[in-house]
Amino acid sequence: MSDQRTPNAAESLCFEAGIKFGTLYHQFAGTPIASESATSLATAMEESIENQPHCQAVTVEIREDELERAIADGAADYVELTGRFLEVEIVVEDGDLEVVARMEMDEGYPLMQIETVRGGREGA
Amino acid sequence: MSDQRTPNAAESLCFEAGIKFGTLYHQFAGTPIASESATSLATAMEESIENQPHCQAVTVEIREDELERAIADGAADYVELTGRFLEVEIVVEDGDLEVVARMEMDEGYPLMQIETVRGGREGA
Amino acid sequence: MSDQRTPNAAESLCFEAGIKFGTLYHQFAGTPIASESATSLATAMEESIENQPHCQAVTVEIREDELERAIADGAADYVELTGRFLEVEIVVEDGDLEVVARMEMDEGYPLMQIETVRGGREGA
Amino acid sequence: MSDQRTPNAAESLCFEAGIKFGTLYHQFAGTPIASESATSLATAMEESIENQPHCQAVTVEIREDELERAIADGAADYVELTGRFLEVEIVVEDGDLEVVARMEMDEGYPLMQIETVRGGREGA
Repeated sequence: MSDQRTPNAAESLCFEAGIKFGTLYHQFAGTPIASESATSLATAMEESIENQPHCQAVTVEIREDELERAIADGAADYVELTGRFLEVEIVVEDGDLEVVARMEMDEGYPLMQIETVRGGREGA
Repeated sequence: MSDQRTPNAAESLCFEAGIKFGTLYHQFAGTPIASESATSLATAMEESIENQPHCQAVTVEIREDELERAIADGAADYVELTGRFLEVEIVVEDGDLEVVARMEMDEGYPLMQIETVRGGREGA
Repeated sequence: MSDQRTPNAAESLCFEAGIKFGTLYHQFAGTPIASESATSLATAMEESIENQPHCQAVTVEIREDELERAIADGAADYVELTGRFLEVEIVVEDGDLEVVARMEMDEGYPLMQIETVRGGREGA
Repeated sequence: MSDQRTPNAAESLCFEAGIKFGTLYHQFAGTPIASESATSLATAMEESIENQPHCQAVTVEIREDELERAIADGAADYVELTGRFLEVEIVVEDGDLEVVARMEMDEGYPLMQIETVRGGREGA
C-alpha cells in the first residue's frame, strides 16, 4: 500500500523497549518468590535484561505489601511471581534517542506503557 | 528536558509489537522440541500470543532442517527451543495503524525488527 | 554417613517424574490463555514434555470453568496460565517400572503427587 | 494390577527433588546472561527454588569459562542461559530423609541425577 513505510529511529527504539518488557515479564513470571528472596530476584531481573541491546537501565521494585498479603492469603509460604507484585522502569537508548517505559498495575492488569521519548526529531 | 515528549500512536504500537516478541521468545525458549512436536508448539505459540492486546496475527515457522540437524548433532532425541529454530512474523493493529515485525536469524543472532509501519500520519 | 546410599530404580524414576512436572509447570506458567487457545496450549504442553526421557504419556486438561470465571473477573479477555487452570497426569516408565503422577488443586495450591508405582521390586 | 502401590517416603522425596530441577531449569533457561550478571542470576535461582516445599539447599555454579567461550563465539555480548553453563546441586529433606541431586553436563546433555538417599528405611 502507498502509505507503507519502514520504521523511523524512534519507532525502532520503542519496539526495543517493548522487547525488554515482554522478556522480563515472561522470563520470570511463575518464579517462586517470598519476601526473603524478593531482592535477589529483582536484582537478577534487572541485570539480565540490561544485557539486551540498547538497554540502558532496568529498575525492578517488588511491591512488598502486595507480596506479603498474597502469601498470607495463600496455601504456601511463597507465591509465583506475577505482575501484581512488580513495578518496572526500563530505559533504552540509541544514539541521542531515549525511551523510558514503565509497567505498573492498572485496574488489575499489569499495564506496560511508554512514558517519554526524548531526542532525535519526531518522525525522523 | 525540553525535547521530552509522550509517544505518538505509531510509537506506542511499535512498543506493543516489541512486547509480543519478547513474550513469545522468552515464554517458550527452552521448551523440549522434536520434529513430531514442532507443529503443536508453533500453533500454541501463535494462538497464545494472539491473545495479547492489539495482536492481529502471529505466524511461527519452525525451521525443520535446522531442528533436525541439531537433534542429529545432540545427545538426546529432542532439543530445547531457541531462536535458531524459528521464524516469526507478528502483526499488530490499532485503529488504522498497522505494524508488521519479524524475527529471523542474522549471523547467529535471532534478530527482531519492524518491517513496516502503515497508516496514520508519521509523527502524529 | 553410614546410611547414605545411591537411589534404586524406583526412586530414580520418581525423580524423573518430578522433573517432568517442574518442567511442564514452569515452562508454561505465565502463557497468555483464553478459552479459544486452551486446546492448542494443552496439546503443545503434552507433546513437548513427552519428548523428555522416560516420559510415556502426558495428559493436560484445562479447567475451562475456572478459566472462564477468571477471564470474566479480570481486566483483559485472557489470563496468564497458572496451576488453578490445570489438571495434569504424567506417566513415566523405565523397563518394567511405571510411575503415575498427578497435579491438581488442593486448597488453592497446585499439588503434585505420585499416585502409583508399579513393577520392579520395592527397594530394589 | 496387583503390584501397583502408593509411593514410599523416599520415592516421594525423590519426586520432590525432580520437581525442583525441572523448575529451576525451565524457569530460567533462556535468560540473558553475561559474566557480569552471572552471580546475581545464580543467587536468584538458588533463593527462589529454596522457597519450594522440602527444599533445604540449592547451589548454582555458573561455568564461567564455558560462558565466556560462548559469548566470544556469539554475535552478541551475552547469551541465553542453558544447561551447558550450569552445575547445580539440590538437597531436599523430609523428616530424617535427605535426597541430594545434581545436574551437570554429560556428553553435551544436562544430566540430572540423584546422588544419594539418606535416612529412613529403604522401601519404607
